[in-house]
Amino acid sequence: MRMRKKKHLDERLEKCNNVITLFSDDSNFVTAIEKKEYLDMQELFGNDNPVVLEIGCGKGRFACELAKRNPNINVLALEKCSNVLVIACETAMKEGITNLKFLDTGAEYLEKYIKPQSIERIYLNFSCPYPKKRYANHRLTNERFLKSYKAVLKPGAEIHQKTDNMHFFEYSIEQLTGFGFSLKNISLDLHNSDFEGNIETEYEQKFASLGMPIYRLEAYIK
Amino acid sequence: MRMRKKKHLDERLEKCNNVITLFSDDSNFVTAIEKKEYLDMQELFGNDNPVVLEIGCGKGRFACELAKRNPNINVLALEKCSNVLVIACETAMKEGITNLKFLDTGAEYLEKYIKPQSIERIYLNFSCPYPKKRYANHRLTNERFLKSYKAVLKPGAEIHQKTDNMHFFEYSIEQLTGFGFSLKNISLDLHNSDFEGNIETEYEQKFASLGMPIYRLEAYIK
Repeated sequence: MRMRKKKHLDERLEKCNNVITLFSDDSNFVTAIEKKEYLDMQELFGNDNPVVLEIGCGKGRFACELAKRNPNINVLALEKCSNVLVIACETAMKEGITNLKFLDTGAEYLEKYIKPQSIERIYLNFSCPYPKKRYANHRLTNERFLKSYKAVLKPGAEIHQKTDNMHFFEYSIEQLTGFGFSLKNISLDLHNSDFEGNIETEYEQKFASLGMPIYRLEAYIK
Repeated sequence: MRMRKKKHLDERLEKCNNVITLFSDDSNFVTAIEKKEYLDMQELFGNDNPVVLEIGCGKGRFACELAKRNPNINVLALEKCSNVLVIACETAMKEGITNLKFLDTGAEYLEKYIKPQSIERIYLNFSCPYPKKRYANHRLTNERFLKSYKAVLKPGAEIHQKTDNMHFFEYSIEQLTGFGFSLKNISLDLHNSDFEGNIETEYEQKFASLGMPIYRLEAYIK
């Protein structure tokens, strides 16, 4: 269950509820978790287009832009921090984006509410690096999460990761390849590479403008 | 067959011959290639200690230091450019290193003279990055070489790579993981990492002193 500390925030979130947001106390989601039923994506999005996940969408710039550029896919964006999620929701609502839903939760329970082998792609953008070793299992590329990603991804589907944190990127490569993922389209300095079609996140713009390299990879299982 | 363009160079190499160098026109090596017999490492090194390869040893600083620090392993260092190989040979001879042999050839024929699953580790230090895409198959982490490495490495043995070239490192990660290798102990800035026991090569010292990051990885097959 989500903790809504601020009444004002709560009200703002509720206003988005009917339009674009699936809350973790929404009956659909509660049913999925408690009754171990998977979310019905067709019901949620109103069509059977491919579904991609962004885990940790922050203020939602990436998710909104991704959804707008790709009207034929559905974007399910997860963010457990309500303070930033509300901004993402309001932006999507304001822009009238219909193929984007938000969920106010983390990556922990993915397998409980997402059908196995049903997701077209997972995006991990500037996830918290948890620099201290004792919190390594909180990193979103820790093998406990990779296990869930592998379970929900379609065969051959990809994880796309970006980060500005060098050690987190090193860790991610080790974890992903140790778990059986192969890597492609790696950039160790994305903004000085020939990669096209990049969608910048809020963090990315800030870090890149400071001249810091942005790291990016695509992971797949053969 | 080795091309010795300079008589002086030829004489210098011959002086090293009896002590430490196995030449590609040496009868042992010719036999290995022509008769498809594997090099007898025990005969070559005079013991049955584990054998590691450095492919492209340049002036030999890394190979010499590696051999000195690890008297219980044998180092076979390959270098096809005679102009630098002679310096490596002379250094090893001068320092009286007995667990190091040189071979004046490249990585192309490894499988013809090295017994399958007999090598403890392969080192690739600052290999030529061949930046142009049309020469990508010359890069020492191209899959045609990885196939040979996998064949000669013992099960679970590792490839250790260092380079200063970002795009070559990106390429290497893609090729290695695409070929089934997992990666560990990755450094995207080796000289500012907590990696201990690094043996610097000539190139490495030069590049690192210019403040350029050094990339390093260890690859293994589970």
